[in-house]
Amino acid sequence: MLDADVQPEPTAAPATPARPGPTRPTPAAIGALRPLSLDSVSLSPSGQLGQWQARNAAATLPHCIAQLDRAGALNNLRRLTGEHDGPHTGMWFSDTDVFKTMEAAAWELADPRADPDLRAFLDGTAELLARVQDTDGYLNSYVMAERPDRRWHDLHWSHELYCAGHLFQAAVAAARVGVGQVIQDVARRLADLLVERFGPAGTEGLCGHAGVETALVELYRTTGHRPYLDLAQLFIHRRGRGLLDPERFGPTYLQDHVPVREATEVAGHAVRQLYLLSGVVDVAVETGDTALLAAARRLWDSAYLTKTYVTGAHGSRHRDEAYGDPYELPPDRAYGETCAAVASVHWNWRMLLAEGHRRYADELERVLFNALAGASSLDGVRFFYSNPLQLRTGHDGSDEDAPGQRLPWYSCSCCPPNLARLMASLHAYTATAAADGLQLHLYAAGTIQAQVRGRPVTIAVRTAYPWSGRIALEVRAASAEPWTMSLRVPAWCRSHRLDAAGAEVAYTDGYLRLTRDWSAASVVLDLDLPPRLVAAHPHVDAVRGCLALARGPLVYCLEQADLPAGVRLEDVRLDPDAPLGTTAMPGGPPEAVALTATGSVSPAGPAEPYRDPTIPPGGPATPLPLTAVPYFLWGNRDPGPMRVWIPTG
Amino acid sequence: MLDADVQPEPTAAPATPARPGPTRPTPAAIGALRPLSLDSVSLSPSGQLGQWQARNAAATLPHCIAQLDRAGALNNLRRLTGEHDGPHTGMWFSDTDVFKTMEAAAWELADPRADPDLRAFLDGTAELLARVQDTDGYLNSYVMAERPDRRWHDLHWSHELYCAGHLFQAAVAAARVGVGQVIQDVARRLADLLVERFGPAGTEGLCGHAGVETALVELYRTTGHRPYLDLAQLFIHRRGRGLLDPERFGPTYLQDHVPVREATEVAGHAVRQLYLLSGVVDVAVETGDTALLAAARRLWDSAYLTKTYVTGAHGSRHRDEAYGDPYELPPDRAYGETCAAVASVHWNWRMLLAEGHRRYADELERVLFNALAGASSLDGVRFFYSNPLQLRTGHDGSDEDAPGQRLPWYSCSCCPPNLARLMASLHAYTATAAADGLQLHLYAAGTIQAQVRGRPVTIAVRTAYPWSGRIALEVRAASAEPWTMSLRVPAWCRSHRLDAAGAEVAYTDGYLRLTRDWSAASVVLDLDLPPRLVAAHPHVDAVRGCLALARGPLVYCLEQADLPAGVRLEDVRLDPDAPLGTTAMPGGPPEAVALTATGSVSPAGPAEPYRDPTIPPGGPATPLPLTAVPYFLWGNRDPGPMRVWIPTG
Repeated sequence: MLDADVQPEPTAAPATPARPGPTRPTPAAIGALRPLSLDSVSLSPSGQLGQWQARNAAATLPHCIAQLDRAGALNNLRRLTGEHDGPHTGMWFSDTDVFKTMEAAAWELADPRADPDLRAFLDGTAELLARVQDTDGYLNSYVMAERPDRRWHDLHWSHELYCAGHLFQAAVAAARVGVGQVIQDVARRLADLLVERFGPAGTEGLCGHAGVETALVELYRTTGHRPYLDLAQLFIHRRGRGLLDPERFGPTYLQDHVPVREATEVAGHAVRQLYLLSGVVDVAVETGDTALLAAARRLWDSAYLTKTYVTGAHGSRHRDEAYGDPYELPPDRAYGETCAAVASVHWNWRMLLAEGHRRYADELERVLFNALAGASSLDGVRFFYSNPLQLRTGHDGSDEDAPGQRLPWYSCSCCPPNLARLMASLHAYTATAAADGLQLHLYAAGTIQAQVRGRPVTIAVRTAYPWSGRIALEVRAASAEPWTMSLRVPAWCRSHRLDAAGAEVAYTDGYLRLTRDWSAASVVLDLDLPPRLVAAHPHVDAVRGCLALARGPLVYCLEQADLPAGVRLEDVRLDPDAPLGTTAMPGGPPEAVALTATGSVSPAGPAEPYRDPTIPPGGPATPLPLTAVPYFLWGNRDPGPMRVWIPTG
Repeated sequence: MLDADVQPEPTAAPATPARPGPTRPTPAAIGALRPLSLDSVSLSPSGQLGQWQARNAAATLPHCIAQLDRAGALNNLRRLTGEHDGPHTGMWFSDTDVFKTMEAAAWELADPRADPDLRAFLDGTAELLARVQDTDGYLNSYVMAERPDRRWHDLHWSHELYCAGHLFQAAVAAARVGVGQVIQDVARRLADLLVERFGPAGTEGLCGHAGVETALVELYRTTGHRPYLDLAQLFIHRRGRGLLDPERFGPTYLQDHVPVREATEVAGHAVRQLYLLSGVVDVAVETGDTALLAAARRLWDSAYLTKTYVTGAHGSRHRDEAYGDPYELPPDRAYGETCAAVASVHWNWRMLLAEGHRRYADELERVLFNALAGASSLDGVRFFYSNPLQLRTGHDGSDEDAPGQRLPWYSCSCCPPNLARLMASLHAYTATAAADGLQLHLYAAGTIQAQVRGRPVTIAVRTAYPWSGRIALEVRAASAEPWTMSLRVPAWCRSHRLDAAGAEVAYTDGYLRLTRDWSAASVVLDLDLPPRLVAAHPHVDAVRGCLALARGPLVYCLEQADLPAGVRLEDVRLDPDAPLGTTAMPGGPPEAVALTATGSVSPAGPAEPYRDPTIPPGGPATPLPLTAVPYFLWGNRDPGPMRVWIPTG
């Protein structure tokens, strides 16, 4: 069995055994901050994060479970046991849809109020996997049924190890939550086979789709079985050495073009790159490899300074679902795969734990409140795969990549269950502990119950964030011994006010550090979040002459639905000097804050695509009041054009 | 045998049988203008068009012939006769590389000074094809060898009819030039099989890659065999009715999403769309179908008003090699396939013949002098497949789509032989005849020898166009009867001077119409071509805040090679108010005219990709003299960044 992360909390010894959440470095790991236990934070459904999490439990996760049957992912497994007769359907890595949904179910089961059907789904599916699994531990429905002679032969494209990784993640979640022994046993058998086959005594293989690396480290953390960590390290060291058949897509797509520690730029398939980097950080911190961690930091600079959209989305090219050149960030052709946004949360969370810097929490917030939140419909059962920042007409000509509307499922449906597993564990990403106390990174209504220096602490968080910037904290600690509560001041925040309850206050690295006896104290932090304009780096050619609207962590957009009849979005200009305001979102959730701005509309001029610049491009401009809505809420009303970056002239 | 377009020249009856060039409508066809015979125009190698044509004969065509052997296209045929033992190599439509090269050789053989090896290549290859061809006329090396049981079964993707079309085009060229009976016989056998299989009495098939339609019409024109025209018409009528398996790429990619006459927008795979439209015009004019011609005109508006780059390139998306939305014209991710530029020449030439409007000749000139000319290296043996308007770093990460440098051949090498066949017949696209006289569309040093109302006319054209705007014409006519010589004034030309030799001059539809007795006259047209700035339509989001530089028909670009050390192209700004000048192109051909402009360089500011717009984006601007080079000459010096659209602020 897996020993559910038996190492004690370094800064808090819980009265009852704490259940670790996702990413649980061992005590020996490099780490500035430590994650809290899964049950240390509960989100109130009245807050935005809690609302998303509740919607995930009530709608998204049941929807995913139902789709596993409808789309055939479970039948792909059942045909190996004779329980189903029919061809393999969907992608050759459809097992991951199952595993990710199982992981989501496991995290959800940490909540005692969870639907008991989740446990039945988890256990029943684990039993199915156990029946499918070969005696040597091998498990992959596609290869076992369709390519039995090609086991481990086509690692560049087979996704066998990638699939294994998602199985391990499901098992780790089950172990940490204390449910589902069968899935843990299945995972360990397969993991042991991987060690045998690809470990130091095995063949020099690696996977064309990264992901198993971080999963193996997490499995090591949960079991204490060192060979898993060693194998993850090997997989990372093997990259960039030409061991993968580059075939059609080339080595960059496969993350095999350069050894990780020599890479200077994120490149290739964005999800592969980001999954790999989560594993890189995990291996670096667990092996004390500061040079590898420095490589991750260097690649973070590449990714977040030159290749990330203002929504936190990654991937500028539909072709190869890839990163582009630095500053190649076209809003209309943004690929911005939902899975890349999930992976960006994973990577930034790991960087935050390792180094403690605010920029990682800022990025986590940005991608969560924009690219990620926007991937789901308001009802939680339709999803974007690609998340562009501009929609002119119908986008890509194909239903699957046409984000005029979210779809309930995809032929490659990696994204919906990825959202489900992240949302089910979202509370675990909000706060951390360190030797000096607790750090609050994401503000959400709810309760934090942790231990500081072995003594219980409760923080009740009341806030309507991100709609309001007021965060009210009621702290109760069992001990009067002073400690430090750190509150993030996001980089977007230009002014704030703090009622620190008399605490000693320092401001370092973007955090307000409040030190006092916390036996009973009320703190109020007011982050000012006036509507603001955002400009892009001048090298971002695609949005030159445009500005974006933002408020707090939220990026806004214009939608056709908010324009008067007869006005085309592409004719709208923003007056950058006019005041901005707030209003209720037309047709949106009652709590949603929309922005008001002033612009103009100038009907298109001559039809000629190219003209003498002295000829005016259009007719006289007519003033036009503008309403911008949160990007994450776009596409929930009448479908139509949308844009985040608005021309100013 | 093929009867080499035996119908008489409607406006000119040559003394010796005239050899028709590409696109030869029958006398019954709708047509405002008529093409001249192939031997009516000769280009002087001292002029730009003649230089390109001479380079094609001396370098490109021999290179293509050699590559057919090196890359295996000929061996793919030889293995069917037992002359070669080995697998099929390259694309499943590699036969078209052979056919296009044969077509180029045939056009070249119209020149009595042509290399006799061309004839040997043409005849030898034709004999090989005759040996490969099945008794029923079927001919396709890939299907015959690799998928013998799948003949005509996978029309959406097999390219069988597309390949046949290129064979027909080669045969038509051979017939018109009067060489190569064998290739003509092979083509007719296959064409007759197509009629039997897919004609009115056959199955309702069509090809996933358009191209056979225009080829069948040309074959009809050359043979007078009406079933070929009828079949072309059927193929066009069958589009958009869901007869093709949409498979992975969807119906739009295959041009099967909407019936042609209902289409309002060019869409999908750009080369397929453009090839189809050439066939549409051919069928429309030969069948008198004015509604179909109107559909082509409507789609022309869509293509050239909203989806064409300033270089004349087509295709905004690497994914699916496709058109994007209207005004989606990213310079960096421009696909701009060379074959689409070739196809644009074909389509515009047909529209020009059908309707006579200048805009088609303007477009022909634009694509020829920019996108098309830029696809070849100065030495004529390396080529671009994709023709972007901006290069930041390495483009696409793959060698094949990385236009940092032109490549000698491609795994899908459709473009080089396409260039060869166009360039070999380039002189045929320069002038036309109509009832009232002759029309000069493209200016090139050389001689036009035609007949006007049955009497010989010679026009000697002296010009250094496009470097100079002076076009001097010496006209000699055997008859003193007045007729009209029409000279195109390109839309880019804002002023001109004309010494009309006393002719009566009218200016209609962009042409100077000079009417007089032309028995001996000297005309000088001076098109002013000052350097000028070009702005894009305000809906072209990707180049907002930028201007392009142009002179005459040429679009210019900035290359890193012309910047001082330490200055990055992406930090360069153009001063739109400073005067422009001309200079010799540094490191370029002696005749090439470069442009001078004034700009500035502003080193990049804060590293943050997104900022408060009140924070300056960079350091203080330093004035910088700029040199811009003709786009078609880019990438012939040190590789490095390039851009056509230059930010002004």
